[in-house]
Amino acid sequence: MKPSLKIVKIGGKLIENEALLNSFLDDFVQLNGPKILCHGGGNKATEVAGKLGNETKMVDGRRITDKDSMEVITMVYGGLLNKNIVAKLQAKGQNAIGLCGADGNVLISKRRPVKEIDYGFVGDVVKVNSDFIANLLSPGIVPVFSAISCTEEGVLLNTNGDSVASEIAIAMSKLYETRLYFCSEKKGVLKDISDENSVILKMDSEKYKELVEAKVVTDGMLPKLHNCFQAIDRGVKSVLLGDSGLLKKNSIHTKIVK
Amino acid sequence: MKPSLKIVKIGGKLIENEALLNSFLDDFVQLNGPKILCHGGGNKATEVAGKLGNETKMVDGRRITDKDSMEVITMVYGGLLNKNIVAKLQAKGQNAIGLCGADGNVLISKRRPVKEIDYGFVGDVVKVNSDFIANLLSPGIVPVFSAISCTEEGVLLNTNGDSVASEIAIAMSKLYETRLYFCSEKKGVLKDISDENSVILKMDSEKYKELVEAKVVTDGMLPKLHNCFQAIDRGVKSVLLGDSGLLKKNSIHTKIVK
Repeated sequence: MKPSLKIVKIGGKLIENEALLNSFLDDFVQLNGPKILCHGGGNKATEVAGKLGNETKMVDGRRITDKDSMEVITMVYGGLLNKNIVAKLQAKGQNAIGLCGADGNVLISKRRPVKEIDYGFVGDVVKVNSDFIANLLSPGIVPVFSAISCTEEGVLLNTNGDSVASEIAIAMSKLYETRLYFCSEKKGVLKDISDENSVILKMDSEKYKELVEAKVVTDGMLPKLHNCFQAIDRGVKSVLLGDSGLLKKNSIHTKIVK
Repeated sequence: MKPSLKIVKIGGKLIENEALLNSFLDDFVQLNGPKILCHGGGNKATEVAGKLGNETKMVDGRRITDKDSMEVITMVYGGLLNKNIVAKLQAKGQNAIGLCGADGNVLISKRRPVKEIDYGFVGDVVKVNSDFIANLLSPGIVPVFSAISCTEEGVLLNTNGDSVASEIAIAMSKLYETRLYFCSEKKGVLKDISDENSVILKMDSEKYKELVEAKVVTDGMLPKLHNCFQAIDRGVKSVLLGDSGLLKKNSIHTKIVK
């Protein structure tokens, strides 16, 4: 039997709120066995970019990452947030190492092809260096990934944090029985967006299609759930969606099943 | 016989100037055997801090690192510069990993004691995790260090880049025959500060004392040479000081000897 590995993705308010982050990291440190943490950037990058005078450019609701924006993302995701999370884990007695995709060539990506819109320095992961990750895990070190990948030509690219977590979980499934956790603001997928207590406890791909057609699942939840089902279809043992309490025992959450 | 290990420190204009950095990294990649790169931050942190509206505070010519300054240093040194250097090395075919002191608990420091002046988030390295570094080196990975250390309580601290390189070289001397290279703007220690060709080719501690007394060695060169002699006295095999061409064959430089 393969050993177990947990991959946890955090983002949004959980990163921005110091107290929430600390409490979450306490739960994370308590998790048994090898584990990986992936983080997005919340609004800090937009805040820093604004102060630096770089206006965030959006087309059809999607961010355009120009050269200046990519500099800010490298500073904020790869530096400030990543190193602070690692320092917090060390203070809690959990050895950890902060990585972007360039470190150890761990997340190789391709720039998103330019069709009608050029999204700039944005890429999709095409290869995960799973042996490098396994070598870090074996002595008990937690790899902490910022959502930055790198092309074979050495260009750093902004990359969707959920996809990073999902691609890592899929790649590590060769060596481990992987469990993927997405922690965000919501307790899970909600039947009624205005009712925090309407969490759908279990969702298979049939149910997913139904809910998309019924427009219960919309907007940002669509790509997130796409990542979840991709993971399940490509070897990940289980995927859970929840809020900052997801790692606690008896948490309420959505479980994605095949 | 111990295997050889080269530790190279870069800073100043060498980091700020893209073309100079690229050319230097080409030389660095050509160096045989295990190697480590350490970098400072040049003026980029001051530039970003200025744009963010944080004025750089100086007391008696020394920078005060308050909480906001430390955020900028973590962004610029730990993120932007560190990850770009790693990406450039990967593009040149050299596997590398970017680290700050919190990663793998690699550089443990203590906050500088407050006497007359509180320098803020500034620390001195008290422990280098040499086993962790050796584990990275053995499969041919180059560790790239930004000048940030971390206390045991998980507080990131701004740390002198020359000291970081020197402390790493000293700690690694248990396992390796270490050679330390300081690359900056000058070809080495100059007899006459206005004459680039007056490089002192060889310097022992006797000569150093003479030159300090004669005020040939002053200002920023004093702590740099202090680091050099500390290294030599505590087990480092050789220390060279030079400019961006230091790693080239037949470079002109200052060699520090016992």
